[in-house]
Amino acid sequence: MQRRGLLTLMASAPLWASGCAALADGRAAEASPATLRGTGDLGVVIQRARGAVTVVNTSDRSLLGEITGLGDLSHASVVFSRDGRYAYVFGRDGGLTQVDLLRERIVHRVMQAGNSIGGAVSADGTLVAAQNYVPGGVKVFDAKTLELLADLPATYGNGQRSRVVGLVDLPQRRFAYSLFDADAICIADCSDPTRPRVHTLEGIGRQPYDALVTPDGRHYIAGLFGEDGLAMVDLWEPQPKVRRILAGYGRGQQPLPVYKMPHLRGWAVAGRHAYLPAIGRHEVLVVDTTTWQEVGRIPVAGQPVFVMARPDGRQVWVNFAVPDYDRVQVIDTPSQRVVDTLRPGKAVLHMEFTPRGDTVWISCRDDHLVRVIDTATRQTLATLAVDAPSGIFFTARAQRMGF
Amino acid sequence: MQRRGLLTLMASAPLWASGCAALADGRAAEASPATLRGTGDLGVVIQRARGAVTVVNTSDRSLLGEITGLGDLSHASVVFSRDGRYAYVFGRDGGLTQVDLLRERIVHRVMQAGNSIGGAVSADGTLVAAQNYVPGGVKVFDAKTLELLADLPATYGNGQRSRVVGLVDLPQRRFAYSLFDADAICIADCSDPTRPRVHTLEGIGRQPYDALVTPDGRHYIAGLFGEDGLAMVDLWEPQPKVRRILAGYGRGQQPLPVYKMPHLRGWAVAGRHAYLPAIGRHEVLVVDTTTWQEVGRIPVAGQPVFVMARPDGRQVWVNFAVPDYDRVQVIDTPSQRVVDTLRPGKAVLHMEFTPRGDTVWISCRDDHLVRVIDTATRQTLATLAVDAPSGIFFTARAQRMGF
Repeated sequence: MQRRGLLTLMASAPLWASGCAALADGRAAEASPATLRGTGDLGVVIQRARGAVTVVNTSDRSLLGEITGLGDLSHASVVFSRDGRYAYVFGRDGGLTQVDLLRERIVHRVMQAGNSIGGAVSADGTLVAAQNYVPGGVKVFDAKTLELLADLPATYGNGQRSRVVGLVDLPQRRFAYSLFDADAICIADCSDPTRPRVHTLEGIGRQPYDALVTPDGRHYIAGLFGEDGLAMVDLWEPQPKVRRILAGYGRGQQPLPVYKMPHLRGWAVAGRHAYLPAIGRHEVLVVDTTTWQEVGRIPVAGQPVFVMARPDGRQVWVNFAVPDYDRVQVIDTPSQRVVDTLRPGKAVLHMEFTPRGDTVWISCRDDHLVRVIDTATRQTLATLAVDAPSGIFFTARAQRMGF
Repeated sequence: MQRRGLLTLMASAPLWASGCAALADGRAAEASPATLRGTGDLGVVIQRARGAVTVVNTSDRSLLGEITGLGDLSHASVVFSRDGRYAYVFGRDGGLTQVDLLRERIVHRVMQAGNSIGGAVSADGTLVAAQNYVPGGVKVFDAKTLELLADLPATYGNGQRSRVVGLVDLPQRRFAYSLFDADAICIADCSDPTRPRVHTLEGIGRQPYDALVTPDGRHYIAGLFGEDGLAMVDLWEPQPKVRRILAGYGRGQQPLPVYKMPHLRGWAVAGRHAYLPAIGRHEVLVVDTTTWQEVGRIPVAGQPVFVMARPDGRQVWVNFAVPDYDRVQVIDTPSQRVVDTLRPGKAVLHMEFTPRGDTVWISCRDDHLVRVIDTATRQTLATLAVDAPSGIFFTARAQRMGF
């Protein structure tokens, strides 16, 4: 079924059919849903417009197949099961779909909210949590069955529900998330999912709109939409509390038009520095992660959206908001300078590194292609035809905290 | 065949048959070699005495089966294919065996040297390199077929061959390794494996006996057996050169008997500190990775062998040489203090963390068991019967540099 779906799509979309070499050269035959294969080199690409995901293999740099029927994927995100076999796809329409990458089919699908923006898997792999705008809250599911185990409504004030943003996994079946409407950060302990315990830090700053946890799981950082600066919590402290950092960073006093709020989840931590997209400005900010003070600014080609470190931290790759979203720039971190500017295609929406950083995969929505680039030579190694690709997610995310 | 082998072993080894619950409770039925499964939660345990490996699942905490016929595994090590499906097992007898974890069988096996101590897989997954004592050198194989692609004899002086130690993968099909007899560090570029280029740094210090690369791939560090101190190379410099660090660290002036030389590969880098096993002393050294100066010493229960950071860096776990090898200690890195002492079993030889650090697996050779411990509560979650277990290796190593 999946195979047929993809071929049908190819036939009806001659514009980008020329990029289909990876399917035409016989590799597709390997992609039979029953193929025994390792899952460490698999991933998915969101087909934003079609409500589908394409399964990809990062060793062959090939398309394996597609899975349709996933609903509204206009702002979709994906996390993976501990074994790398299943993708959990969070749709904007509140749909949560468990997809089997080996059989290339849907295993479970629940409409769990009216408007959802992503989720996380617990460190032990047993729980999947979804963060929802409407109704505002977090729902926790059994990762194998998608049975609902816990419902954590984001209630505040006189019983209103807040939109939830910035959900991340923490060690020990815990999750952290932020309440956009309630100016709060919550830490939920789901070690017994039937009796979740939520600790709420209030008054953290106005309108947290997204958040991240550093790769070591220590610092949870929320961006503030309603004022300048960010709210940071040191999760290793016995009694975590909120501290404000980077008072000059943010939306509040912003004199420039902002074409797209940057994704905080894309922040790069490389060595002892974090690289942040400036909001509205054509700059990447460099922050010392010991003092959390800004220590530099790197001029770039547009308003940065994703600022992502290659896994070894030696390079940081940056894409941009309209109208500069045909470009990608590469920052060399030892010298903190832009060393390359690429034009991979029209409407670059996302980038994903292979786990050891040898390649980066870039989705070019309006060219309907994913470009695979060698990060050292910056040569294109493959060009894969995918309809309006947006997010790219590889299974190695299952092995890392905060993804 | 593999299943039968394991059952036969169980019947003939009543001593530890009581620990076989994981096989008796029906999970073994899932382990049919034809089972479609993800490989992100698989691993192998070396059965040192029997020339076999046990395949394990870290989600179920179960034994899946075993693969025999791997030769002398008295000092074996393992690396994984990029997709997580295949283990490459390096035996002390020079055997290199490619094992299929899904079908639980040997795919390829070559006797490639007389005495080998390990290997590495290139960042792109296409090459497997073996480091050999006899004949001294490195051999590079096609990762799919084990066809020999390059032979890099470690020739020096009047044509002698040096033993090779400390082989690690670097970005771009490169490897670094050290020559024990030639006091040298080599960087081999195998981007064209038929024409490998080897750059040798000479006079790096007497008798490098083991080495590591930091998790970011930047610093290659070799321990010196013939004198105090370590040799370090900053691989990010345009012209890498050797610098001596930690002049007080080493074997040269050692006044204490050393029961077992610590494994450098086990060094922990957590945050901005590295935690090193002192040689001969009952101490773990703390080193600042910016200055590479010693900044502290933590007293521990014996001569440390492996000093390993939990993936998030918040804890460092330590095991010990004879006679203290029944113990494991846990260091809390923010306070740099020992916070727990465990006695997991007789003759603790190795430890391996699951990728997100929720559990640690510990091999207790003389109790013939592997203990799975929750790193937060330090409770035992499972006890698995394995004959004389030594090294434990999980497939997530395929996603990391220097493993």
